[in-house]
Amino acid sequence: MKKLINDPKNVVDESVEGFGLAHPDIVSVTPDPLFVARASGAVSGKVAIVSGGGSGHEPLHAGFVGVGMLSAAVPGPVFTSPTPDPIVAATLAVDGGAGVLHIVKNYTGDVLNFETAADLADAEGVRVASVVVDDDVAVKDSLFTAGRRGVAGTVFVEKVAGAAAERGDDLDAVVAIATKANSVVRTMGVALAAGIVPHAGEPSFVLADDEIEIGIGIHGEPGRERIPLEPADAIVDRMLAPILEDLPFASGDRVLLFVNGMGGTPLVEQYIVYRHAAKVLAEKGIEVARTLVGNFATSLEMQGVSITVAKLDDELTELWDAPVETVALRWGR
Amino acid sequence: MKKLINDPKNVVDESVEGFGLAHPDIVSVTPDPLFVARASGAVSGKVAIVSGGGSGHEPLHAGFVGVGMLSAAVPGPVFTSPTPDPIVAATLAVDGGAGVLHIVKNYTGDVLNFETAADLADAEGVRVASVVVDDDVAVKDSLFTAGRRGVAGTVFVEKVAGAAAERGDDLDAVVAIATKANSVVRTMGVALAAGIVPHAGEPSFVLADDEIEIGIGIHGEPGRERIPLEPADAIVDRMLAPILEDLPFASGDRVLLFVNGMGGTPLVEQYIVYRHAAKVLAEKGIEVARTLVGNFATSLEMQGVSITVAKLDDELTELWDAPVETVALRWGR
Repeated sequence: MKKLINDPKNVVDESVEGFGLAHPDIVSVTPDPLFVARASGAVSGKVAIVSGGGSGHEPLHAGFVGVGMLSAAVPGPVFTSPTPDPIVAATLAVDGGAGVLHIVKNYTGDVLNFETAADLADAEGVRVASVVVDDDVAVKDSLFTAGRRGVAGTVFVEKVAGAAAERGDDLDAVVAIATKANSVVRTMGVALAAGIVPHAGEPSFVLADDEIEIGIGIHGEPGRERIPLEPADAIVDRMLAPILEDLPFASGDRVLLFVNGMGGTPLVEQYIVYRHAAKVLAEKGIEVARTLVGNFATSLEMQGVSITVAKLDDELTELWDAPVETVALRWGR
Repeated sequence: MKKLINDPKNVVDESVEGFGLAHPDIVSVTPDPLFVARASGAVSGKVAIVSGGGSGHEPLHAGFVGVGMLSAAVPGPVFTSPTPDPIVAATLAVDGGAGVLHIVKNYTGDVLNFETAADLADAEGVRVASVVVDDDVAVKDSLFTAGRRGVAGTVFVEKVAGAAAERGDDLDAVVAIATKANSVVRTMGVALAAGIVPHAGEPSFVLADDEIEIGIGIHGEPGRERIPLEPADAIVDRMLAPILEDLPFASGDRVLLFVNGMGGTPLVEQYIVYRHAAKVLAEKGIEVARTLVGNFATSLEMQGVSITVAKLDDELTELWDAPVETVALRWGR
């Protein structure tokens, strides 16, 4: 294993410390228990949003902390849910009196620990609601998951829910937006090569020199099938078909098309994937109204991508477009 | 070789086409000869800035086309300079009557082809000036280079020169800013593993399982030395020392600290590098006034990072902070 790390057991603490040092205008890091909150602190009278989960998916979630998106992120150990303690601490720290939404990716550990944290925060007088994201169409159940996994679509849910909170929606309304966003977003991934969890020291799985895995999870969980490498366009066809038939997406729909790099695949390849996905959608009469391309929900240095499609209505489009100022997403239109 | 591509010979064309499809609000792609310009077209009365070079370093340069930065980018084949033709076409397309600055990374092929293009554009009545970027302190001469290489510091030069053009500086003034920026920026890289050029099909170089290369170039050119893997903090010490003594940087300086991922190294590691670099600078009394962390000047899927330090004065700080709206850098402060 070759990585730019010091002691494997300090990877998350040191990386998050570096993140805080690099972006003091946007975030503030609390080291113990570990969480990342907005530098500007709790916002009185507005709903706060907390997300989190195992580390190794950066910039998810700490990269999305900032005005217009998350209030705080709670990074667990690599590929391991944070315990309830830091989730409670983050929740209490960012509550502005209007309640807190937990956005939780659907993994058994995350769901359980966020539930416990919500109960504990509730006992401290903070109203907490939760929305679980489960956008991965690859498999129904998987390692660490009952039901579908939460993957890159989480970025979409966090963005629009954050915008709703920012404009002053109450907790029920923010929950409704996040729930709607999750109901219209679908994702599918592919892996060419695994990442290596620092404290494990070995690749999470091994693919042959000419082999790829369709439907991979963001922790390297098994997908649908292992097949020989194909041209990118054929791989994109394989990934898009189950996405489009799942919702289903139909001619006349307006969508966000989001090609997400898994960490070790360069942009030059991600845009080749984007190119064909955009063409397939155009052929089907589906209008790509918004786009996102880059490494946003990664799996360490895994080589591969995921494709996310989210159906937009006017409200979701407006919330997607709303100003955001985080480390990983920043715009002001 | 496993990559998300179709025919290796179409990698650049297809990727740039995808880039244009993804970001029509920001860029416009001309396919033949191939260049990427601002969607908003030439700006009458303002200096235009054109950069370019071999592909495989994305988002450099096309990701920096947009208001406040580049007017156009000319992507050559992977790791190979574009010929003069597309450079001339881009130069003529973006000229707004106030002249065009070429920002050129110091590689023999790029310098030669941009010079030829400048002469040809000049013959068409467009005044062209050139600034060559050579920020890499690793080695004096290298493969494809007489003198120091131009690497990640190019992002800094392009940002501040673009801001100078945007505020209405004339060509001489924009040249002066770009020249000053290049004179205060220094970079050093490290590789843990090579990327694979698509049409070559094999890694550009091979490092042993426990080996890294200090001073690597962004095309995998040899650096200073190959050494056994060390803890990240020790590697950062090795990279920073020659940077700091080169300018030299001194106590009381205000700097931009830029940790750049080479393409295959995840953010979790980049922030561990950032953390120690920031601490070393703080210990030396050098104030980190601005930061940038992420994949900005890459080498396909190479694993590694570079560290760039740029000395800021009030003017360079103001130009760095000026609003920018490109695919890869976007802010409005």
